[in-house]
Formats: sequence, C-alpha cells, structure tokens
Amino acid sequence: MTAFTYALAQLNPVVGDLEGNFSLIEKTFHNISEKTSILVFSESITTGYPADDLILNHHFIDTLMNKINAFVKETKSSNKLILLPTPWRENDKIFNCVLCISQGDIKHIIYKHRLPNDGIFDEKRVFTHGELPDVFDYNGTKLGIMICEDMWHTDAAKHLQEQGADILIVPNGSPYQTDIYKRRMVEAKARVSETILPLIYVNQVGGQDEVVFDGQSFVMNAQSEVICQLPAFEENITNFSFEESAEITLNLSKTEEIYKGVTLGLQDYARKNGFKGVLIGLSGGIDSALSAAIAVDALGAENVHCVMMPSPYTSQESLDDAQACADALGVKLDNISIEEAMKAYGNMLAPHIDKNNAGTTFENIQSRARGVILMALSNATGKMVLSTGNKSEMAVGYATLYGDMCGGFNALKDLYKMQVYALSEWRNKQGMVIPENIIDKAPSAELKPDQTDQDSLPPYDVLDTILESLIELNLSPEEIIEQNSYDKDTVYRVWRLLDLAEYKRKQAPPGVKITPKAFGRDRRYPITNHFKTTG
Amino acid sequence: MTAFTYALAQLNPVVGDLEGNFSLIEKTFHNISEKTSILVFSESITTGYPADDLILNHHFIDTLMNKINAFVKETKSSNKLILLPTPWRENDKIFNCVLCISQGDIKHIIYKHRLPNDGIFDEKRVFTHGELPDVFDYNGTKLGIMICEDMWHTDAAKHLQEQGADILIVPNGSPYQTDIYKRRMVEAKARVSETILPLIYVNQVGGQDEVVFDGQSFVMNAQSEVICQLPAFEENITNFSFEESAEITLNLSKTEEIYKGVTLGLQDYARKNGFKGVLIGLSGGIDSALSAAIAVDALGAENVHCVMMPSPYTSQESLDDAQACADALGVKLDNISIEEAMKAYGNMLAPHIDKNNAGTTFENIQSRARGVILMALSNATGKMVLSTGNKSEMAVGYATLYGDMCGGFNALKDLYKMQVYALSEWRNKQGMVIPENIIDKAPSAELKPDQTDQDSLPPYDVLDTILESLIELNLSPEEIIEQNSYDKDTVYRVWRLLDLAEYKRKQAPPGVKITPKAFGRDRRYPITNHFKTTG
Repeated sequence: MTAFTYALAQLNPVVGDLEGNFSLIEKTFHNISEKTSILVFSESITTGYPADDLILNHHFIDTLMNKINAFVKETKSSNKLILLPTPWRENDKIFNCVLCISQGDIKHIIYKHRLPNDGIFDEKRVFTHGELPDVFDYNGTKLGIMICEDMWHTDAAKHLQEQGADILIVPNGSPYQTDIYKRRMVEAKARVSETILPLIYVNQVGGQDEVVFDGQSFVMNAQSEVICQLPAFEENITNFSFEESAEITLNLSKTEEIYKGVTLGLQDYARKNGFKGVLIGLSGGIDSALSAAIAVDALGAENVHCVMMPSPYTSQESLDDAQACADALGVKLDNISIEEAMKAYGNMLAPHIDKNNAGTTFENIQSRARGVILMALSNATGKMVLSTGNKSEMAVGYATLYGDMCGGFNALKDLYKMQVYALSEWRNKQGMVIPENIIDKAPSAELKPDQTDQDSLPPYDVLDTILESLIELNLSPEEIIEQNSYDKDTVYRVWRLLDLAEYKRKQAPPGVKITPKAFGRDRRYPITNHFKTTG
Repeated sequence: MTAFTYALAQLNPVVGDLEGNFSLIEKTFHNISEKTSILVFSESITTGYPADDLILNHHFIDTLMNKINAFVKETKSSNKLILLPTPWRENDKIFNCVLCISQGDIKHIIYKHRLPNDGIFDEKRVFTHGELPDVFDYNGTKLGIMICEDMWHTDAAKHLQEQGADILIVPNGSPYQTDIYKRRMVEAKARVSETILPLIYVNQVGGQDEVVFDGQSFVMNAQSEVICQLPAFEENITNFSFEESAEITLNLSKTEEIYKGVTLGLQDYARKNGFKGVLIGLSGGIDSALSAAIAVDALGAENVHCVMMPSPYTSQESLDDAQACADALGVKLDNISIEEAMKAYGNMLAPHIDKNNAGTTFENIQSRARGVILMALSNATGKMVLSTGNKSEMAVGYATLYGDMCGGFNALKDLYKMQVYALSEWRNKQGMVIPENIIDKAPSAELKPDQTDQDSLPPYDVLDTILESLIELNLSPEEIIEQNSYDKDTVYRVWRLLDLAEYKRKQAPPGVKITPKAFGRDRRYPITNHFKTTG
C-alpha cells in the first residue's frame, strides 16, 4: 500500500446551493497541502444532504451535471485524487455516487448499494441503487470505497476485501442522534475486524432543517483502534497518513454533545435562511430561558431579542426571573403586556361566547395574543421567532397552536423535559446564565391563577419515561405498566394524548432531531388514527 | 371457470380502527347475499390505508393479528371465499397481503410484490415485499390475485397467466387525483390485453388526512370492456357475475369529480376526527365562499358557522357579498369586527415598531386577529376551523402564517385558483349559492385600501400555468418561458416565491390531494434550499 496522505474534509454544505458548495469544494481542493494525495469529501457534498425531492427536479440535476463537468476539467493539471460524493445521473436514473476524479477525468464511479429508507431517510424515493462497489486501483493501492449505509452491512466491505482492497474509505451523511457515535463505532469495528482493513470515515457537519450532522470523522486502523478523530459540530480539514500520528479529538460528554447539536442546528437554520437574529418570548420558565441561552451561544447576545409579555396571571416571580435571565445573558428584554389584547378579544367575543363556560378558550387567547406580538416584531425586524416547547409538551399536546407554537424554529423540539433540566444545569456550569430559581420552581404555563403543569400532567420524570417507552422504545402500554409499575390509567392517558396531539405536531415549526425517534419525518403517524386498546 | 358471483366491497375504513373495521368486515360478510361465492375487499381494509408508521408499531400489529385470527375462526361454517387484504406479520416482517379465507382457514396468501415508494406512498418504509403472487385454485377456478401497484407492471399478471390463471382480481388503495381514472384504465387494459383475462378491480373509498379514495371499482372483460362500474366517492357493495349484465355507473365530469372529492375529503376528516361542524371566516371573496359551499354539502348547513370579521379596509361590497352567500347557503353568519384588536395591538406595539416603516406587519396582524377569533370560537364550540387558501396562494406564500392559514383542514389546499373558479361555477349550476359578484370581482385580501391580488401577483391564469409547469410538469423556468413566451422575470420570480414559501407550507393545515403533485407528503422539498439559477 502506497504511503498516501489523505485529507478528510468535514464540511458544512448548504442543500441546493450548487454555486456555494462547488466554491467550497474548489477552495478546499486548491488549498490543501502539497503532500495530500487523496481528498475525501462527505456524502453528497455537491448538493448538500438530504436534498429530498430536489433530486427529482430535472432542472436541478441538469445544473448539477454541468457543475460536475466543469469541476472535473479544473482538476486537469493535478495529480491528486478527489473522491467527490454526489448525486449522479445515468440513463435518466439518479444514483448516489462517489466520483473518483484525477487529472481532468472521472477514473471510477462508486454507486451506493443500500439506500436507507427508514427513520428520516427517503433514499429509495429519489435514488436508484447500484451494484456492490468495486475497488479502485490508484497508483497501486486498491481503494475500497463505499457510501454511508453500505458500511452498516457486511456485504459491501466483504466484496471489496475479496477484490483485494487495501483500505476502506466511507463518505457519510450520518445525522446526529444521542446514540449515533456508539452505533457507528460498533459497525466500523465490525467491518474492520471482518476485513482486517483500516477504515477512513468522513461525515458531514452542520444543520439542515430537521437534522444536524455531527461530523466526528475518524480513522480506524486494522486493529480497530481510532487513530485520528475530528471534532464534533465543527468544520475541519485534517491531513492524515498512516505513517504519522494524528490528533484524536476527545468525545464530548452526552449533555455537551446534545447542547452543541441543538446550538449548531439553530445557528445553521438561521444563517442558511438569512435570519440575522431571533425573537423569544421569555416567560420566566425554564424552556424559554434555555432557548435564549442556546440562541445566545448560536447567534450572539446582540442577535437575541427577548420579550416578556405578562398577563394578569403572571407572577412577580416570573417577571423577576425573566429579567434576571436576560441580564445574565446580556440580551435585550422588552416588556409588552397582553392585557389590552385580552380585553379586546373579551369584548369582541362577549356576544358569542359564555365566558364562564368556555373551557380553555381564554387561556389559549393569551398564548395566541403573545404569538401575534412576536410575529409582528418578527415582520417588522426580520428576526425569526423561536418557539420553545419541549418534546414532552409536544408529545401530549401541552401547547397552543398559533400561540406558543408560533415560530420559524424550535431548538427544544426534540428534547424531553428532563433533558431540558440537564442541559440547563450543564450550561450554567459553563457560566451562570439561567437563574437557579427558574430551574428549581414548579413549571407553570401561568394561564390561570396558581396553575402548574402537574395539575394536568404526571410528574415530568414519569411522563418522560412513559413517552420514551412509547416513542423511542416502541413499547405497548401493558409492557410499560409491567416494567415500571405505573398507574394503568396514567399510561393509557399519556398514550391517548400522544396520538391526539398529532394534528398539532403536523403544524409545528421544525427543530433538530436529537433522540432516536424525533417528531417529524422520523415518525410518520396519521392524524386520523383510531387505534386504541384499553388493556 | 366456475360461474362465481363476486361481491365487490367498496368500503370506507378508518385508519387504525381495528375494532370498527373488523365490525364493517364482519357485517359485510354476514349480510352479503346467499349467492355470493367470493367477497373481495379493498387493500388493507383491516387497518385502513395508508396507516404509515402505525404499521411499525408492534402493539398495533399484535392487536391486528389477534383480530385476524378471531375473524378467520368466524368463517368456519361458511363456504364463501373471503379475500381479505391486510398487513400481515411473518417472522417479524410485515407484508402487505391478501388472505384467502374460507371455512375457518387461511387457504392461501398473496404478498404484494412491488411496494410503491413515490408520490404520497412510503410502502418500502413499512412493508417487506414478497415474491410474485401465485394463483389460488378455488373450486377448480384459478384466481390470479395481485395487489394495487402490482397491476401497474407486467410481471405479476404475466406470472399469474403462466400459472394458468382464469381471472385477475386486484384489491387497491388508489388515491384520487385528476388523471387517475384514465391512468388506471390504461394499465388495466394493458394487463387484460397481455393476458386475455378478465379483471376485477376493487378500490377503497373515503378520506384519510391528505388523500381521498374515489372507489370507482370496476370489472373488465377479456375484451378490455368495462362491464361493471361502481360509483365514485360512495360506499357500495355490488354482486357481480360474468353470466349476468351489471350496472355501469357513468363517470362524473372532471369538475364534478373534483368537487365530490374535496367534499368527501372534508366530510371524512371532520367525521373521523369527531368534529360536528366547521367555522369559516367568510370574507366576501371566492375562496371562502366556495369553502362554505363545500362545507354545507359535506356536513349540512346547520353544521357550518360563518363569521365575517371586517376591518376598516373591508368594503361594503364584501359585507354584502358575504351576507348574500350565507343567505344562499342557509348558514349562520356572525359579524365580529376586528377593529378593537387592531387598535389594541397598535397601542401595544407603538413603543416598539415604527408604524410607517413596518412593511406588511399590520396587514398580517389583521389576518392573525381573525385567526385568534376563529380559534376562540373553535375552542368554545368544538367546531373545526376550515382555512381557505388555494394552491396558487399556498404556492407563492400569499397567505399569513397563524392568520388565514389557521385551521384544522383546508378543502381548497390542492386547487389552483382557476379550479376554484371552475368549481364555483359548476356548484352554482346545481343551485345558486355563490353570488355572481363574488365570482366576477377582482380578488383582494383587503388588508389595505384598494388592494387587489394582482398588485403583487401575475394574473391568476398566468400564475397557474407557471405553477403547474413547475410543480406538476417539473419544467425548468427556461422551458416554461420557451413554451409560453412569458416574461422571464415573472417566471423566475414565481419560481423563487414557490421555494421561499416552503416554510409556510410546512406549517399549513392538511387538505386532500387533487392534482398529480400535491403539497405535503407528495412533494418533499427542503425548507433550507439555495437552488437558484438566473437563466
């Protein structure tokens, strides 16, 4: 095997941005060091990943093919090998490929064999699968290249080994979720120990709508040891050769990893969609406080505009906590009472609704009046509203459509309430920004006097365990009752609430996937769904 | 071939409703006539279709398998054959099957071979595909059964013919779209002429979230003639034998077909989700007028509650038109001025927003104030808000998030503006309900003085042609300019607006698919999407 120097390019492309992504590719190609022999990009670096139905758009693919051809020509005078992962059209079919480009030519093409079509993935919808990848002989070294999902099964690596591969190289678009690093390691080690070949893993980094990519590209030697690792949630280009020792970035703690993931997810959503800052309704509660902290870390305090919108039910404690939080974060805090809007709606609706027999109607009006104020400030300033409901609330429908659910993005969307507490505590250890009282007090929506969340919901640790069992572990109510000896009515009620709130979630803002099974494209439940059992 | 009598059961199951669907199956089985030999249901009659990720829920499949077993036992004393299409688990894999049930036994199982995974379909996500179906010999007749998508390719029919099939029987879950009947006929005729076998086609009927099934089940003889056809958009059980002539329900006109499709889609969404009626903001414009007409036809005038919510920009003409429309439809019309809410927000925001330099901020507030009123009435009455934006508006983002986009459902979601006009005119021919002036006047959002839609949009016939070319025909801007000699800037601007509005559509209420490419699960575009070319 030749003593190559590999450049691992862990980059943050933008979906659809052919212009920008090819600039990034060209800049990387022109700036890598002289000694680099092989430049490896992440999956679909040309289009960004996942591009979804853009791949079915002929105009897009025509433009892509022209861009690829122009880039290939540009490599004419170079001896380096570029492994360029990209969608690629042949005979009107679109494949998910790696082009092996050198000296102005495409020398070899690798086709993705297994197209993931579960979880957040829809690759069978847009791509045609190829045969198992063949090795590419480059200056006497047999490169065994396979794409992402193909590393998660035995056949591609085995096929490459049988063809005499000297090394496995895997470009990836592998989105973050809490257990993903461990799962990747299990698969990589399995392929390495099956083939006794070293493995180079290059992953995308950055946020794209409902997913964030963590990077954490690595090199594993034939003894299954990680001998090089790139950082999490940062762009990085690292030169690596098996002859020299390399940097191994240490893994983050689980909580830090999640915090960095949601922060980058928000940062990229705002940046890639042209928002200069965000607007947050700061209530004095923990969800909006943590959201504001994340927003400050993602966008800078000067780009975070908080608004306290008290009603007559808002306590002095909440006003004080919101102010203390804004002070600690160094963000602007406006105070806009919603009382006048509440009165106006009260008058307008008086002839039509019996106020004493209206259920949650007037509670929801408070939440919606706040939504209108935030959206007006958003329209007037160009800042994006950040909604702040957590996964536990979104699961059981403890949120008001067009009220606190207003927003362009929700950083907490896929965090259970207990994770919100854990992240808040972790963030405070890096510098106190969320007043202790916000963490310690009983959570309340403050939509009527002396209300707390636990008036209508089980304690959050119980609620979260039931929800995780239903959503992440796919357990039945009876299995949950058996495992936790919870009250039967509580478990069945939570299940029922979970299904009933599907219509709200369908209209919720996006937020990044953190758990194994996020609401959104990862979990596709019908709204109209009469499945229920009573045990 | 034995002279069987077939019962074609074109029914309307509810997704997830194992209890209710099995009751329907049992009732049908017990009530069919003595002479019926073979009872054919539509695809996935047990679970409703599409059940999406419910299929991945073990608890759901466990319950389903128990229900199937109980039903099979119930057939013990019957000589009839029941073709029961259902999801079916074997060795932890879920298949999309037809069970051939008789005398208390499952005599034969057909597995769906081709799983559709394009458009609205996600079957590769939830099902494992089976081998090509084998014929089932029933009392000396070889039944060639295949499921839905398997009729759209040559291999299954050919395989069945080679095995000596006497007849092709196809259970379907084929959703409505404007060209679907013609396309089904092309495929059915092709299979019949390839095999010279008669074909029985049984389709689901009814609405399920974003799709509506049209039924229109039929029988084709070996000469490719339709010799029996069931009605569109109605439940129907028809006994058919090749020895007797049968009823052929005539096809509806295209416009009537669309009208009936959206009406049933709304009716079933409301019914299956437990809403007794709907609330509509009646503006005096054509979209809300047509929505109200559809709602009256779907739910009855007594279940449609309209609200006119004038602002100072609302013309007397609009007030008169809304009243005339409500009178013609016989629905309740409340009048709630939004002026007080506008003033309240004006005061609340005065210290924060420069009113003279606020763009569309205060226009959006009007729309959102109306949304709050409708949602309050919804909370207080249990009626569902019907939003009324058409596909042309949703395409270019000519709608206010959390304002006129508030709603549980949108009957017009997949109708272009020109289709809205056509449906209004068709509906008036059945009985005048939409005053002519509403159809004739220039469309306006009335959010500022003397505003019309065409101040900011091209004429709707031009806009619709550009949009249909981009969305339904997948043409590039250059192709559109070439074919229609439209102004280049207009075409590129519409394309840009289409992509920019993706974030709004992601939070829009559901509505039924009518066109070949509906917004929603049928067209999965990223929000973050930088693809643009300038020609």
